Amino acid sequence: MTSAHPASARKPAQPQPSVNELAWPLTAKLVDDAGSLRLSVSEGPGGCVIVDAGIDAAGGLEAGRRIAEICLGGLGSVALVTGGGERWPLTVHVHTADPVLACLASQYAGWSLSHGKGKGAFNALGSGPGRALARKEPLFQKLAYQDDCDRTCLVLEVDKTPPPELVQKIASDCGVHSKRLTLILTPTTSLAGNVQVVARVVEVAMHKAHELGFPLQQIVDAAGSAPLSPPSRDFITAMGRTNDAILFGGTVQLYVDSDDEAARRLAEQLPSGASRDYGRPFAEVFAAYDHDFFKIDPHLFSPARVLVTALRSGRTYGGGRLDQALLDKSFGGPV
Amino acid sequence: MTSAHPASARKPAQPQPSVNELAWPLTAKLVDDAGSLRLSVSEGPGGCVIVDAGIDAAGGLEAGRRIAEICLGGLGSVALVTGGGERWPLTVHVHTADPVLACLASQYAGWSLSHGKGKGAFNALGSGPGRALARKEPLFQKLAYQDDCDRTCLVLEVDKTPPPELVQKIASDCGVHSKRLTLILTPTTSLAGNVQVVARVVEVAMHKAHELGFPLQQIVDAAGSAPLSPPSRDFITAMGRTNDAILFGGTVQLYVDSDDEAARRLAEQLPSGASRDYGRPFAEVFAAYDHDFFKIDPHLFSPARVLVTALRSGRTYGGGRLDQALLDKSFGGPV
Amino acid sequence: MTSAHPASARKPAQPQPSVNELAWPLTAKLVDDAGSLRLSVSEGPGGCVIVDAGIDAAGGLEAGRRIAEICLGGLGSVALVTGGGERWPLTVHVHTADPVLACLASQYAGWSLSHGKGKGAFNALGSGPGRALARKEPLFQKLAYQDDCDRTCLVLEVDKTPPPELVQKIASDCGVHSKRLTLILTPTTSLAGNVQVVARVVEVAMHKAHELGFPLQQIVDAAGSAPLSPPSRDFITAMGRTNDAILFGGTVQLYVDSDDEAARRLAEQLPSGASRDYGRPFAEVFAAYDHDFFKIDPHLFSPARVLVTALRSGRTYGGGRLDQALLDKSFGGPV
Repeated sequence: MTSAHPASARKPAQPQPSVNELAWPLTAKLVDDAGSLRLSVSEGPGGCVIVDAGIDAAGGLEAGRRIAEICLGGLGSVALVTGGGERWPLTVHVHTADPVLACLASQYAGWSLSHGKGKGAFNALGSGPGRALARKEPLFQKLAYQDDCDRTCLVLEVDKTPPPELVQKIASDCGVHSKRLTLILTPTTSLAGNVQVVARVVEVAMHKAHELGFPLQQIVDAAGSAPLSPPSRDFITAMGRTNDAILFGGTVQLYVDSDDEAARRLAEQLPSGASRDYGRPFAEVFAAYDHDFFKIDPHLFSPARVLVTALRSGRTYGGGRLDQALLDKSFGGPV
Repeated sequence: MTSAHPASARKPAQPQPSVNELAWPLTAKLVDDAGSLRLSVSEGPGGCVIVDAGIDAAGGLEAGRRIAEICLGGLGSVALVTGGGERWPLTVHVHTADPVLACLASQYAGWSLSHGKGKGAFNALGSGPGRALARKEPLFQKLAYQDDCDRTCLVLEVDKTPPPELVQKIASDCGVHSKRLTLILTPTTSLAGNVQVVARVVEVAMHKAHELGFPLQQIVDAAGSAPLSPPSRDFITAMGRTNDAILFGGTVQLYVDSDDEAARRLAEQLPSGASRDYGRPFAEVFAAYDHDFFKIDPHLFSPARVLVTALRSGRTYGGGRLDQALLDKSFGGPV
Repeated sequence: MTSAHPASARKPAQPQPSVNELAWPLTAKLVDDAGSLRLSVSEGPGGCVIVDAGIDAAGGLEAGRRIAEICLGGLGSVALVTGGGERWPLTVHVHTADPVLACLASQYAGWSLSHGKGKGAFNALGSGPGRALARKEPLFQKLAYQDDCDRTCLVLEVDKTPPPELVQKIASDCGVHSKRLTLILTPTTSLAGNVQVVARVVEVAMHKAHELGFPLQQIVDAAGSAPLSPPSRDFITAMGRTNDAILFGGTVQLYVDSDDEAARRLAEQLPSGASRDYGRPFAEVFAAYDHDFFKIDPHLFSPARVLVTALRSGRTYGGGRLDQALLDKSFGGPV
């Protein structure tokens, strides 16, 4: 009574979805609802639309939740639930219609954007559906996904408007007119920024699985959650906390079409606790490496607790654990 | 200061809703979003629409969630939240606008459909709004509900397309042209199938309450949740787990317009633990009865934990308890 | 690396949203879906629309959830999740796009409405977007918010239709024709009434913060949850339970743009446990004061557990705690 079709051979008969077409109505609604969401919308370089979600505008939790769904290319759902215990109750929950496309082809902040040098330089990592038009990252070769759309949106975790040259480069790389480009700016120090980064809890697991050599096409589905980190005005602290929300408080369940041994190994290697750099708040790790990201073990970036269900056998492997004490230490409270 | 109107006399002044009219936009959207949801849509026998949610198509969690809302006749909400503890965090939450219509007139997999005999026979239990058009089950006499619509949808927990004769029979019994019939196929072994069956947690409680002789019109409202079972490629294991998700991990709260004694008795008799067959994974029970469903105590099918609020007195009666050890045993992990 | 813009100076560049424009589609949909939601809609005095959500109509959980979102002026999200433990699992979760406008300019039941005297008198507290048109409460001077709309909705926690004179006064104070006024009636004893009152968990925290003298413009964001109280047909018991759901079971996290000392003090003073009247079910407190509301410490009305994140320092202060025993005592069970 075993299914005749191995999942690895299962292919959707429908064409692949366009993360840009799916995300566009969400972006348009975000702009329409700017007043309610306490966002500021303005015309930027080259006529692009700039959505300020926490620089001069207040933004907030709901703005961040909606921006996270835009980052997921319209293929994912992000919910805020105050159900995570007395210490850090507010929790960000994520699931998607298609985790590979939603998280890796759209949400992953993998597009390295920079302009200028030294003190006035502008550096950012682009997240969201624009990445699937530009395809500047080697990851896209593995994804075998190419989107096509004449308008797009990119989310930048920055606290200032990008320079005109960079806006032009983004539009050009995406193959859209700069007037049809929306840039959503979510500073790391803002509430909206915190929500949209913590909402990467599933993406972080997907990406590390990829780094560990696990075949992406074998990841059939995924869902996860992490406590919302309290923002800090200090950039390093804020960035550290959004990471630690996932590293110490994130839970992800993956459903994989693999044999048991591969699933077991993934559950063992995937959690943050498997990294040599695990054990203290991210800001401390970062300082210990002289603020050089490239010295940090890339395997640190993953959820605290992972469940991997091997669809071939139906067995589920667990790895890692939530760490309340480290979470408290990173989040600075509750006092 | 007691309300002048006993709840049993409360009648909505509005006409009863049509589960088919309400579910149709959800079905149409499911078909529209087939690419995103990794579903395969094709023309089936008699021109009906076949949605493959896990046979050759991959489907997934979100597809299952949406199919569950279709099963509820557009009258219910199904949410996925990763909040159920470290062992089986992913949880299916259900509430409805009208539990009797949503769960019993639409969602309950009560329409027995079969064609052929022996090895080539096709057997399925139909769930969803089509049931309220066909009304082939004695239950509908109790429900006093007859829907009227020229298009419909039925969900079948099967791993192959039904034969043309059966499609024609379904269309005919529903009083619709077969071109206006959508059949959604969710194999028990699939992710979408798991979600849509576990989403029956409230329905299972409603149905057992009915079996216990509790008057349905006295069940004013209900909500519940259960952990999502990990799929298995083995049909018996997969089916057992979806049952056990509810039997060992399901929680339901019912609000009833009854006296205290009736509410107390319901809370006592309703939980799965009150059944003589409770105590081991469903697949084992099934095997012990030589795979004969009809030998199993029908009272086994119910949530682990039940709260019954007697609206007349305002008292709440609790019964049963969640059983983590049996859940782990059934779910095969986490290792 | 600290942000250049203090949050107190952050102003949205967009005009403020209209809670009436935002809530109107939700009200129209509630009326459209009356059959599904088991509501009764009729023409009331002056041609106004009366939505009965629990007097003669049954109403229910989902009706209450939707009415709560109307009360929040279309600026908030209310979800029902069965995830709060074995005793009172069904939980109401709330977050908003803008907590000051959603909770205080719209949801707060602060508009005192009465007609007649003695036994036949009609008394009610109006909640919802109509308040922001009428602006009869001193609170609106602090809010610096004036809505403008030619149609409106008000939610009344009552068990009978208001007299024609009062309907005319409401319409007149709101500056709308009575035909463009919708009154939603949610008796305290009804399921819908319970949901919509427990959904005030964040509003109660916002309002007490205001009473404590904390500047509202410093409350940047908020989210919270509380267990759903079981209804009672006895008005006092029902009212007591909706209060106690928040007083003993409510959790709220506030994000404030203040210094640490102000945040610490707010976390200390805000929880219900800080009130001199804390310690027994609300109905008992009410009886002890001879049913005179004005003798009760107004500081009693607040969530059990509060987290206050000071955005300037990034520190989070906790105060109060959930009290399961008092919750059980108030909720009358589970037996």
